[in-house]
Amino acid sequence: MAEAVLFELLHLEMVAQVYKEAESGDTEHGKSISTLEGMGFRAGQGLIERFTKETPSFKDELDIMKFICKEFWTNLFRKQIDNLRTNHQGTYVLQDNRFRLLTPVSNGKQYLEEAPKFLAFTCGLVRGALSNLGIDSTVTAEVSVMPAYASQTSWFPQLDTSF
Amino acid sequence: MAEAVLFELLHLEMVAQVYKEAESGDTEHGKSISTLEGMGFRAGQGLIERFTKETPSFKDELDIMKFICKEFWTNLFRKQIDNLRTNHQGTYVLQDNRFRLLTPVSNGKQYLEEAPKFLAFTCGLVRGALSNLGIDSTVTAEVSVMPAYASQTSWFPQLDTSF
Repeated sequence: MAEAVLFELLHLEMVAQVYKEAESGDTEHGKSISTLEGMGFRAGQGLIERFTKETPSFKDELDIMKFICKEFWTNLFRKQIDNLRTNHQGTYVLQDNRFRLLTPVSNGKQYLEEAPKFLAFTCGLVRGALSNLGIDSTVTAEVSVMPAYASQTSWFPQLDTSF
Repeated sequence: MAEAVLFELLHLEMVAQVYKEAESGDTEHGKSISTLEGMGFRAGQGLIERFTKETPSFKDELDIMKFICKEFWTNLFRKQIDNLRTNHQGTYVLQDNRFRLLTPVSNGKQYLEEAPKFLAFTCGLVRGALSNLGIDSTVTAEVSVMPAYASQTSWFPQLDTSF
């Protein structure tokens, strides 16, 4: 519990810091997003290594996505992904109806524009985790509904290679 | 456990990022240290608020320092401070014989020069925590011995005000 709070606070600081650096220089918004995504990517690689240490090997791509939705997400956010869909052709939709890293700032409408910067690190986490499991992917995310304390987010890993 | 690993990885990324920004610009080493310390300070303020929610109020300064050594440190680093000393005049020495945030990088001698950047965030954490408990302080740290996997660190909160 304490460490989860720590994660949230650290994440907040990280986002603030990356954007502060950007403001003081001539860096674009896109660059900050990609910085955060890259940090997430490397952290995701490290995390999945630890998380899968005692996990028997995965039988297919879907098996891996289920692991991301359950164990990986729970380890990071103390809850599972609420809904997983796939077209069985490498496109997945992971829906989290209460994404933890948005809640500290979720309030009002102006925040919708701010959302991407709070999703970038986690996009990287997922892409890094998949990468270490041998899957190249592109991970995007969007916020669907955003009342305070119940931010519904959708995560779209698009796998570049078949398992 | 998972979240502790996450903290370590995030911390590593944060340090790397702050130093990368510094290298690409004309920022000095001291500036990066102070950036990390500032991030720690704000995180420390947020954390102590949560950690002390169910704690009866502290009876004196020493009582607060004991809380930092035990609950605060354990919540962050899964171990207590190994040794606490004080001159009873506002100067404290907290010794951690195996500081977790140094271990991922501890190896060899060149690393001694690198140590300060891995201590700055935690200096801020302690200063932020003390600040939220009404104590202004200056917190410095040093590494005493550094064989791989057993980094002895000393932390020196100097309290500016009496309790």
